Amino acid sequence: MDNYPLNIGILGAGGYSGREAARLVAGHPKLRIAFATSESEAGTPVSRIARGAEGMLMRAENAPLGECDAVLLCLPHGESIKWAERARAAGAKVVDLSADLRVRTPQTPAWAREAVYGLPELHREKIAGADLVANPGCYPTAALLALAPLIDEELIAGPVIIDAASGVTGAGRSPKKDLLFAEVAEDFRAYAVGNVHRHLAEMRDQAVMLGGGGAPELVFTPHLLPVRRGILETIYVPLRERVESPFRLWENAFAGEPFVEVMDDRMPALADVVGTNRVAIGATMVDGVTRPMLLVVAAIDNLVKGAAGQAVQNLNLMFGLDETEGLL
Amino acid sequence: MDNYPLNIGILGAGGYSGREAARLVAGHPKLRIAFATSESEAGTPVSRIARGAEGMLMRAENAPLGECDAVLLCLPHGESIKWAERARAAGAKVVDLSADLRVRTPQTPAWAREAVYGLPELHREKIAGADLVANPGCYPTAALLALAPLIDEELIAGPVIIDAASGVTGAGRSPKKDLLFAEVAEDFRAYAVGNVHRHLAEMRDQAVMLGGGGAPELVFTPHLLPVRRGILETIYVPLRERVESPFRLWENAFAGEPFVEVMDDRMPALADVVGTNRVAIGATMVDGVTRPMLLVVAAIDNLVKGAAGQAVQNLNLMFGLDETEGLL
Amino acid sequence: MDNYPLNIGILGAGGYSGREAARLVAGHPKLRIAFATSESEAGTPVSRIARGAEGMLMRAENAPLGECDAVLLCLPHGESIKWAERARAAGAKVVDLSADLRVRTPQTPAWAREAVYGLPELHREKIAGADLVANPGCYPTAALLALAPLIDEELIAGPVIIDAASGVTGAGRSPKKDLLFAEVAEDFRAYAVGNVHRHLAEMRDQAVMLGGGGAPELVFTPHLLPVRRGILETIYVPLRERVESPFRLWENAFAGEPFVEVMDDRMPALADVVGTNRVAIGATMVDGVTRPMLLVVAAIDNLVKGAAGQAVQNLNLMFGLDETEGLL
Amino acid sequence: MDNYPLNIGILGAGGYSGREAARLVAGHPKLRIAFATSESEAGTPVSRIARGAEGMLMRAENAPLGECDAVLLCLPHGESIKWAERARAAGAKVVDLSADLRVRTPQTPAWAREAVYGLPELHREKIAGADLVANPGCYPTAALLALAPLIDEELIAGPVIIDAASGVTGAGRSPKKDLLFAEVAEDFRAYAVGNVHRHLAEMRDQAVMLGGGGAPELVFTPHLLPVRRGILETIYVPLRERVESPFRLWENAFAGEPFVEVMDDRMPALADVVGTNRVAIGATMVDGVTRPMLLVVAAIDNLVKGAAGQAVQNLNLMFGLDETEGLL
Repeated sequence: MDNYPLNIGILGAGGYSGREAARLVAGHPKLRIAFATSESEAGTPVSRIARGAEGMLMRAENAPLGECDAVLLCLPHGESIKWAERARAAGAKVVDLSADLRVRTPQTPAWAREAVYGLPELHREKIAGADLVANPGCYPTAALLALAPLIDEELIAGPVIIDAASGVTGAGRSPKKDLLFAEVAEDFRAYAVGNVHRHLAEMRDQAVMLGGGGAPELVFTPHLLPVRRGILETIYVPLRERVESPFRLWENAFAGEPFVEVMDDRMPALADVVGTNRVAIGATMVDGVTRPMLLVVAAIDNLVKGAAGQAVQNLNLMFGLDETEGLL
Repeated sequence: MDNYPLNIGILGAGGYSGREAARLVAGHPKLRIAFATSESEAGTPVSRIARGAEGMLMRAENAPLGECDAVLLCLPHGESIKWAERARAAGAKVVDLSADLRVRTPQTPAWAREAVYGLPELHREKIAGADLVANPGCYPTAALLALAPLIDEELIAGPVIIDAASGVTGAGRSPKKDLLFAEVAEDFRAYAVGNVHRHLAEMRDQAVMLGGGGAPELVFTPHLLPVRRGILETIYVPLRERVESPFRLWENAFAGEPFVEVMDDRMPALADVVGTNRVAIGATMVDGVTRPMLLVVAAIDNLVKGAAGQAVQNLNLMFGLDETEGLL
Repeated sequence: MDNYPLNIGILGAGGYSGREAARLVAGHPKLRIAFATSESEAGTPVSRIARGAEGMLMRAENAPLGECDAVLLCLPHGESIKWAERARAAGAKVVDLSADLRVRTPQTPAWAREAVYGLPELHREKIAGADLVANPGCYPTAALLALAPLIDEELIAGPVIIDAASGVTGAGRSPKKDLLFAEVAEDFRAYAVGNVHRHLAEMRDQAVMLGGGGAPELVFTPHLLPVRRGILETIYVPLRERVESPFRLWENAFAGEPFVEVMDDRMPALADVVGTNRVAIGATMVDGVTRPMLLVVAAIDNLVKGAAGQAVQNLNLMFGLDETEGLL
Repeated sequence: MDNYPLNIGILGAGGYSGREAARLVAGHPKLRIAFATSESEAGTPVSRIARGAEGMLMRAENAPLGECDAVLLCLPHGESIKWAERARAAGAKVVDLSADLRVRTPQTPAWAREAVYGLPELHREKIAGADLVANPGCYPTAALLALAPLIDEELIAGPVIIDAASGVTGAGRSPKKDLLFAEVAEDFRAYAVGNVHRHLAEMRDQAVMLGGGGAPELVFTPHLLPVRRGILETIYVPLRERVESPFRLWENAFAGEPFVEVMDDRMPALADVVGTNRVAIGATMVDGVTRPMLLVVAAIDNLVKGAAGQAVQNLNLMFGLDETEGLL
């Protein structure tokens, strides 16, 4: 194959998802790091974050966007969109890991409306044909894969409660007092309570895309866990009717999916998924309540399936590679 | 006062709640440890678990039940009830930290039906007159203090979801593979999913005591946190109608309570309560849903307000002491 | 007692040692917080950091230095000395928790040379008569209490190796990338290797004060532990001759000391001291080496005996209070 | 190659090193799991511990030793040797991860004296020709790689102090109270103090093999870290003379070694090696002491380079495969 490895630029390689992206690209048999940027670490070797990689981290403004096949944007929300535009203008495909392209607003420019929502298990074909992909948020990835079969089967009878907990890398690598070891260890707390987290709009938009007018209302409470990686979502779903062996819903919906693990005998834990690109899903009916309620638990690694791994999965699709390449 | 210190026997002082009870009694100005038992550590000094305490740990069968004013039973569920009976027969008051006396079944013997449910903020007067107290479970303590004002005001309009997480000391000190550091660290998992946890019956019984036929249905999912101590419960309550400034409900219901902290500007975290006998409660309406839903967060230290601290609070009441003695 | 409570000002109450100092003063029966400063949290209630305390955090420049009996300086190294001078000029006694007054250099001004090194177990009388106390560093506190009896008995025959590990609160509360939970958890590393840590000069000066020309050479390597609090020092001491029952050296040297716990059957661990003002010390001869070598292990809580607790112990001495008041 | 994959039996696949071995063999391009044993988990799928592996865990007594090319013995010390004998009798090559074959005593039977000490960086050729390999202990692996160049160059002038810390998986997966999360978290402690750890004999034997009569005396203190994996050793070496740029010693001794990383600008941390088969080594002269002293820091993952990874590295050598196969 003359065209391999493909050249991938990584913007924002100093943060947690950027470093994970750099590692995955460096270890991928058909991709290589064309360049990697970090404003705070420019001038240090890329090999510090991705063993074996060549060259030095550079500032984004010096990035040779035109010399790569695709870029992964691992930049802060709000900063990403302008680099998406530049990279597209330079002819590179784009996977944007920020929230900038995930939710369309009246202000979203026309070119950005072309962005495909990069959840391969739900939108594989569109992604394969896309040049611009909005990589899903970590919480929405787990929630949408947990809810999609229930929406699809029109089983949901009321507001869905998504009680979620994430490791600290989900909050980024900027030094903040709240994220110091001495503050996080031995603690656990809810944040963005009362349905005000940014990821809610993304979940709702996507739920409507899946279910139209029948999309459920969503209630979402994230918590900060004293762990480095991983998201666990415990989801309460009022059902139209009792379902036997509910795990079958996901087994059927995701048959053959390489990155979906349906558990038929227990619920997933972080330890089942950390370090992998998998989502693990389990489900059980709730005993002792009058109206049928289903409990679903979904787990992912927020930096892999919830960020950089899914981005590479999208790249694989966009370039016609085996979807699992570099991810097993 | 000639009668102080009161002599307190501690059965099961080798576990986490037993050790915490021993420490609290040893540091209490009006109580002293009369004896402490541990089957596995009998023969070692009590001072190993409670600095400054005298004597040696003994086996329960050697405990001089008749020589103490009260006993704290920190024994495994199922073993406690026989010691409660013996201690009562020997004339000692009893606070039972196990589940044995909390839920009445047709098999509960007559003498055990006298047990008062030891949640002082809800049953202070009964406790003050009791000789036999069933110390509440850790999860029910937080849940019932969070729900009592809502039940009392008849505000609840549907099933209540209690999504809870506990530190590992809640699972006891018996060596189990699941509780090894290498298994728990960096992990997070739900357990007893689908409404099958033992504490549910206790919560339901007590909810019915508070609300009669209007008591809400409860859905309860506990999770295991990689922390040593603390319980955080995130509770979703469908309401009959929207409530403004919901924290006022707890401020009113618990005005003057020394161990209830109502937060009006943020939600409680474990760090607010670990090491104390307090429950911290916060509440907010959920945005963006059609039918009113209230989010309540409650936090306690599972070994203090959820076990040994509440037991001492009960002892204080049973012996006419200041309720906060030894607990601030 | 008409004079109690004494009014204590706390400068730098937003950091870890400052917050610990505020908690200890607020809970002390004969001290009260006169004021507390924090540049970054000025305007928020002092009760946020010390339950029950009154008033608001203020900026240091607004601190009424003249209205308090003493100040605790919990400021960054280099900033503290000017506040020590101002507080002395305003008539307040001073305990400085920074390094500024611990080591005398040719540049140290005359007034600052009056500072007494505040290690009560070694310099109790001087501290009792002092108005200006340099509170020892956390690593030196443990090291000097471990070494003092050996220096005193002239037992040391060669360079002493102090291999130490500290919890992250020892590194302060300023947000730094290196101290984020995701960086520290599951890691362990040496820092300031090769005998270049600031605390070495302090240890050496004090060792010379104790041992004169016979003071041992010191080799010191600190490590960063993934825990919040605590210092453990494993110390290797070449001896002139083998010592039987070496723990007796500390038992004799520190007989009656309320905050020194000598272990005769095992070595101390962090869990023995965290949350207390104690130092725990154990010692054993090393088997299988030609020349006699003693292993000493010493543990303290870096924020209590290593900072704020020792500062309060010093205040107790300076004001003629019981040395243990507010510290048990 | 017709002969691949080679069939590897794993005895003791339920412990931490056994599970790591199963994962590495399952993911190795030229090895496969022939069988895996676990007394406590017999009857459950091997895929639970090594994704993608086939078959069920069995009891060791049922293991078809004759049907595999080699066995990895991940059994408790003392139990391993009899399985080594049986496997040899059945014609399988053996890598023993226990301590049973590492140190020769007068009781060691003749066949066991053939065991080659499996530290490839020091004994590559012997391993390549061996049928029976004693896989080194975790602490000795790091210590010997740190000391070998110094012994070789005859630079050591006195007793060497090895102050070491290990994550909890080093203590095995048997449920013990001491290893519960609630005991280990936020703690740090020395154990086997005074030069009594089993690994010392192994280190000494090997040091003598390397240095003959000039082998240094060793002082070794292990500590238990609240992390899951990783060993860091901070080593103090009295030198005959000062060495400039001491890292060069390891660069020269281990030039081209795929699993040795010499750091020339900082000291290694656990985070540099966890999850890899590498040892990372840094060194610096100690300032401010009269007689030259070198500080060396070495880090490995105790389950990989300290156990299962090194075992696979040995298998690769024994079967003429690329030494890094399945390990990068």
